[in-house]
Amino acid sequence: MAKIDPISGFPEWTPSQRIVEQKIIREVERKFELHGYVPVETRSIEPLNVLLSKGDDKEIYVLKRLHAGDDEDEDEGGVGLHFDLTVPFARYAVEFQHLLSFPFKRYQIQKVWRGERKQEGRYREFYQCDIDIIGQGSLPLFFDAELPCLLSEILVELPIPAVVIKINNRKVLEGFYRGLGIEDIESVLRVVDKLPKIGPEAVKAQLEEQMLLSESAANSCLSLGRITSRDNSFVDAVNALGVSHPLLEEGLKELSDVVVACNLDAQGDFVVDLSIARGLSYYTGTVYEGYMVGHEHIGAICSGGRYDNLATGGRQKMPGVGVSIGITRILGYLFGRNVLRPAKSTPVEVLVALLDEPSRAKASHAAQLLRKRSISADVYHSPHKFGKQIKAAVKRNIRYVLFIEGSYQVKDTVTGDQYEVDINQWCPEISTPSFNVLMNEE
Amino acid sequence: MAKIDPISGFPEWTPSQRIVEQKIIREVERKFELHGYVPVETRSIEPLNVLLSKGDDKEIYVLKRLHAGDDEDEDEGGVGLHFDLTVPFARYAVEFQHLLSFPFKRYQIQKVWRGERKQEGRYREFYQCDIDIIGQGSLPLFFDAELPCLLSEILVELPIPAVVIKINNRKVLEGFYRGLGIEDIESVLRVVDKLPKIGPEAVKAQLEEQMLLSESAANSCLSLGRITSRDNSFVDAVNALGVSHPLLEEGLKELSDVVVACNLDAQGDFVVDLSIARGLSYYTGTVYEGYMVGHEHIGAICSGGRYDNLATGGRQKMPGVGVSIGITRILGYLFGRNVLRPAKSTPVEVLVALLDEPSRAKASHAAQLLRKRSISADVYHSPHKFGKQIKAAVKRNIRYVLFIEGSYQVKDTVTGDQYEVDINQWCPEISTPSFNVLMNEE
Repeated sequence: MAKIDPISGFPEWTPSQRIVEQKIIREVERKFELHGYVPVETRSIEPLNVLLSKGDDKEIYVLKRLHAGDDEDEDEGGVGLHFDLTVPFARYAVEFQHLLSFPFKRYQIQKVWRGERKQEGRYREFYQCDIDIIGQGSLPLFFDAELPCLLSEILVELPIPAVVIKINNRKVLEGFYRGLGIEDIESVLRVVDKLPKIGPEAVKAQLEEQMLLSESAANSCLSLGRITSRDNSFVDAVNALGVSHPLLEEGLKELSDVVVACNLDAQGDFVVDLSIARGLSYYTGTVYEGYMVGHEHIGAICSGGRYDNLATGGRQKMPGVGVSIGITRILGYLFGRNVLRPAKSTPVEVLVALLDEPSRAKASHAAQLLRKRSISADVYHSPHKFGKQIKAAVKRNIRYVLFIEGSYQVKDTVTGDQYEVDINQWCPEISTPSFNVLMNEE
Repeated sequence: MAKIDPISGFPEWTPSQRIVEQKIIREVERKFELHGYVPVETRSIEPLNVLLSKGDDKEIYVLKRLHAGDDEDEDEGGVGLHFDLTVPFARYAVEFQHLLSFPFKRYQIQKVWRGERKQEGRYREFYQCDIDIIGQGSLPLFFDAELPCLLSEILVELPIPAVVIKINNRKVLEGFYRGLGIEDIESVLRVVDKLPKIGPEAVKAQLEEQMLLSESAANSCLSLGRITSRDNSFVDAVNALGVSHPLLEEGLKELSDVVVACNLDAQGDFVVDLSIARGLSYYTGTVYEGYMVGHEHIGAICSGGRYDNLATGGRQKMPGVGVSIGITRILGYLFGRNVLRPAKSTPVEVLVALLDEPSRAKASHAAQLLRKRSISADVYHSPHKFGKQIKAAVKRNIRYVLFIEGSYQVKDTVTGDQYEVDINQWCPEISTPSFNVLMNEE
């Protein structure tokens, strides 16, 4: 092979890590389906003009055929790999709207690609697990609460640290800034968004020097960003800052309704945090970011929000709201810190020992009998000494070895016991877990 | 949205089609795991030099960051999207060999990308479901029989037409050609491979005029390609052509062993077909192609073979053998011909009717009780008239509607019955199937 080095930003798991990832994805899918979300997959590419209008153009990977132009026209304008699943889904919902029932709830678990700068926890190819709801004409606000509740119901059962979900509403920020007389909302948002990275002094300096805000306006922006609460007491805290604007009022009402509805759900830890803004420009209302408690430095591990203008189907608006779980970022971090330890390198539960070549058919038959009862089995590939075959089973974390000599005998490599079994009845007593979690040890 | 047209070659399924695809992929995964294949995923990209040395360079999609060079060096030599899963897996097996147990059996289900010319049944982005076994130093021939047997065991249970698996061995072809004194084996293989497309006359003409074979040699090549058998009688038929070469003998022996072993397995239809060559250059022994009977014109729906030189890990050879199921090609064709009719547009089994806004919490609670017992449930989004809610359930193929008014009542929209239920006990009697198969109707 010409080159076998890893490619930075394009992670690959070992088989035992992949078994954990797969188990988690399957559990997430099961939960999404139980809650009525419909599976959708979109193509990996979108026209460049769609991607460029919705994202940060630095992040986009463009696709070219190696010998483009040889035998046919290329797609005009070019195509790129999608950088998230929200933009493709909004396009899909418009394209397939005649076939869908609205409000349409879908889940989508696919890889996305971003040409990110290299840093810990940032990948260039990674999985996102998304759920979104898109309406036709309108979309009730209670969906803005349903999503974080479902998210926390799912996250609490995953083998990961506790997650706190921070909620804000873009209308609160935009309304507040407008109430202060600020016009370049986007730029101010971007500066305030740097608060956790560069600190209040630097943010204040940038607001005054670059955005030309008065000291009092800059202070108000900072004060707003510091407000957090677990109930709707944040409304009074905002009002105490003495700024008013119709959009601010609308945002406070929405955010208050969402946090009250979330708190009816006892499972999650929801915090109103007025510093949350979200980078992507298409959000228009509620926004979410989830952090693993004690591991906030790796950034949000799930995020999303309300987008009222991303999809438009002819005359009708198609407002949506969605959240995304960054499964690759979570696993990369937990694997890397040895918090989540994969424990299983194969799905095989039983290794059938091979006595000699002539008995291979008998061994295969025994394996098939187990498989018919949904027990994963493999026949050892060569008639090596039984001691060697048992060692191979142990090395692959296969607990049981089946011997066929007249009768069927199972060896439990953990207890060392060996006993006769009825091949049509016997089941492994204990399945090998696919991982161990060591939350407190780092 | 700027552009909502489909992009040719990049198929997207409707939700009900995706439900069928997902069901099939999950069943294939389950079978692979029962047989001891370990899940692996590789990154979507490989270095261009790796891709170019193993594939047809016209097919490769190259990746570029939109603003490459702005802030860091690009990977030297460039990268492209993988065009199959065999080349990436061979690289993975070398890279991770210190962690793997050999012979290493893996399955891999991912999308691949090829810049193919547009034609029916050809896609530019599609799923492949691959199983491969890679050895260290050597790999016993019985794996060459295990793969088509497992393949047919899986295919026979899928909702698709019967599949015949055609088997050949590259050594038979190469040995035969060498016995005829031919030196440019690759070119002759490529000409003979056109037999089903351009017919024997044209192939013969090309062999004589372009390859400069004698008429008798060209006739021998054609005669070889016409040999088929369901047992090892092909050996006599080849020997009757009067060509001999050590490599031919080796190939005949291997092919004979494989077909005899396959025929011990009663489930599949296996045919030795000496016209099968496979396009990719890395195959060195056994090759397979599977066709849906009566639908051969769409081409092979599964294929694979033995590759002794694709992966090399330091001093050791790492021979492999694998097969791939082209799930997108199969489904695109069957959906398009209306043979496989998706029947389910949502995972939801029970729609909980919403009486009025104040009772939403009660409705959500009932849905959660069902979900706890693994029954997918959704609450209707708005307190519309019950008649409208029932119609919405029928439109989404949801058979059961749950009403909460004092007691719990279930309406079966298929029979029209409505009855009181214990919400903690009741289960849907019949789950909605995800598809109907109409094999005889086209």
